[in-house]
Amino acid sequence: MAMTPARAADVCDDATRSLLEERFEVSWGSDSLDAAELVRLTDGAEVLITSWGTPPIPPELFAGAADLKIVAHAAGTVKRLVPVELLADRLTVFSAATRIAWSVGEYCLAACLTLHRRLPAYDARTRAGGWKPDAFRGRELRGRTVGLIGGSSTARAFRTLLAPFGVRVLLYDPYLDQQRARELDVTPADLPEVMTADIVSVHVPDLPATRGMITAELLARMPDGGVLINSARAGAIDPEALEREIRSGRLQVALDVYDPEPARLSPEVFAAPNVLLTPHIAGDSVEGHLALVRYVLDDVIAFLDHGSHGPSWVDPARWSVLA
Amino acid sequence: MAMTPARAADVCDDATRSLLEERFEVSWGSDSLDAAELVRLTDGAEVLITSWGTPPIPPELFAGAADLKIVAHAAGTVKRLVPVELLADRLTVFSAATRIAWSVGEYCLAACLTLHRRLPAYDARTRAGGWKPDAFRGRELRGRTVGLIGGSSTARAFRTLLAPFGVRVLLYDPYLDQQRARELDVTPADLPEVMTADIVSVHVPDLPATRGMITAELLARMPDGGVLINSARAGAIDPEALEREIRSGRLQVALDVYDPEPARLSPEVFAAPNVLLTPHIAGDSVEGHLALVRYVLDDVIAFLDHGSHGPSWVDPARWSVLA
Repeated sequence: MAMTPARAADVCDDATRSLLEERFEVSWGSDSLDAAELVRLTDGAEVLITSWGTPPIPPELFAGAADLKIVAHAAGTVKRLVPVELLADRLTVFSAATRIAWSVGEYCLAACLTLHRRLPAYDARTRAGGWKPDAFRGRELRGRTVGLIGGSSTARAFRTLLAPFGVRVLLYDPYLDQQRARELDVTPADLPEVMTADIVSVHVPDLPATRGMITAELLARMPDGGVLINSARAGAIDPEALEREIRSGRLQVALDVYDPEPARLSPEVFAAPNVLLTPHIAGDSVEGHLALVRYVLDDVIAFLDHGSHGPSWVDPARWSVLA
Repeated sequence: MAMTPARAADVCDDATRSLLEERFEVSWGSDSLDAAELVRLTDGAEVLITSWGTPPIPPELFAGAADLKIVAHAAGTVKRLVPVELLADRLTVFSAATRIAWSVGEYCLAACLTLHRRLPAYDARTRAGGWKPDAFRGRELRGRTVGLIGGSSTARAFRTLLAPFGVRVLLYDPYLDQQRARELDVTPADLPEVMTADIVSVHVPDLPATRGMITAELLARMPDGGVLINSARAGAIDPEALEREIRSGRLQVALDVYDPEPARLSPEVFAAPNVLLTPHIAGDSVEGHLALVRYVLDDVIAFLDHGSHGPSWVDPARWSVLA
């Protein structure tokens, strides 16, 4: 368990601690978890469970730890944690990214409903002693068009939550084929078409191909009153164009990611009535975090017992497009 | 069309105007719609379509308007509009209350997700230049328990939208039988049990039996960090107990209804960080309103053609428990 006690309290519930102790001999990380402690924890271990704060695993460690064949990451991306060259033949990797995606999906629906319905604006007006305004009015989500940029697990979680609303969902993803589109109940579309949706949500990883992909010209395609949500990577949207759209008041914008973080925005954006600003918490919730070790552990046990690959398995073939 | 031109623009879309003109001879209300104009509009009419602002229909009007057999209300409650004694044998009534309920359901989910995830608190902190706080943390809705007080159409819309979240839904409704509970995918519960849910939403009509039904003792049963939503009737909750709970900061509270309206609350409640205050707009949205005439008109046409009762039909047998 290559995580500090504080992190273990965050990502491992009591029932999972019991399951771990029943099934395995467990060594728990200390408050001063570092590379040297990682080597000690890994000595003789078959399974390494990691999380946020675990030091990157040096390839040499695997040479010394001949029994180690599974790394299960009770957090998101494994890209900076595991040496990719070991994945194919030496190591099986699991990640809780798809579990975290559920919290992100809930955040996206919350932000979308709240801004489209103008709840922050109504709240401000009511607190100021006002009543139903003439200047703005809430919108219904039912029947509207939602555009998803990127078909990652967070996009899929959001799409699942949209099911009862009867919305049309456009998805731009260069890796999407027709069968997958049918499974996800989305309409494949190119990026310019997705940007015409009433609600646009960004779900791309941080890759050279995605940096700055949402240009001023694409933002301008969004309809007046549209909702833009970015819970993925700040770099995907042209920052100056985004600030202009926010300051014009034309769009409702939910931002959870920034570059740099913590957010350094202009005073006008920090004060804008048409934004919802959160501190990179889309994937962070009490219950979502507490579920993370169990999420990968169930797959680890199934893999040890039956060789099966559960939903947290990291497919080496998809490494290059992973977040 | 017993509504002013301004109201018609609010509740009747262009396609529905065309359908009306194709199918019927239509007389449209004027800006000065009053009881006298109502009599003129009704003369020789078979169908009266009403909405907010239509004067109450005097029973005498029906004696003079022998052809009038249908009242279709493109708004919510018909209780103050139509004489109940005419319902059983003389008049068929339709109401868009169940369509408005959809907007209310969307509001309930928006308020629930937003407050449970603490988005307003995160937003305030981020705007103030802060970052992830120690003082609070968002919660996930998945797997939690939602308590509904009253099984009205608004409760059913909210329940429909909760489907993908895998929540347990408790419903208190004295008129609920086991078969109906299974159809709605809810667990019947008494009021004290419903009040222990993580999220409690009020969906009762304003009746003598519901006034003050949520007492201080019942509110105290909610868990710390619980979310309370009232989009139904302010009178259902003991106002002093509610204010105490809000001021203690123990609960997150979304209020859309007040007594009186516009809201007159204490300065402490108007400034409380743990409330979401909206000006009675749960059932009000651009798209939701524009759909209202069409919603009742489709049922009116089906009734005229086939004698069928669509979802907007007002069942005289349920009059006493209607909102």
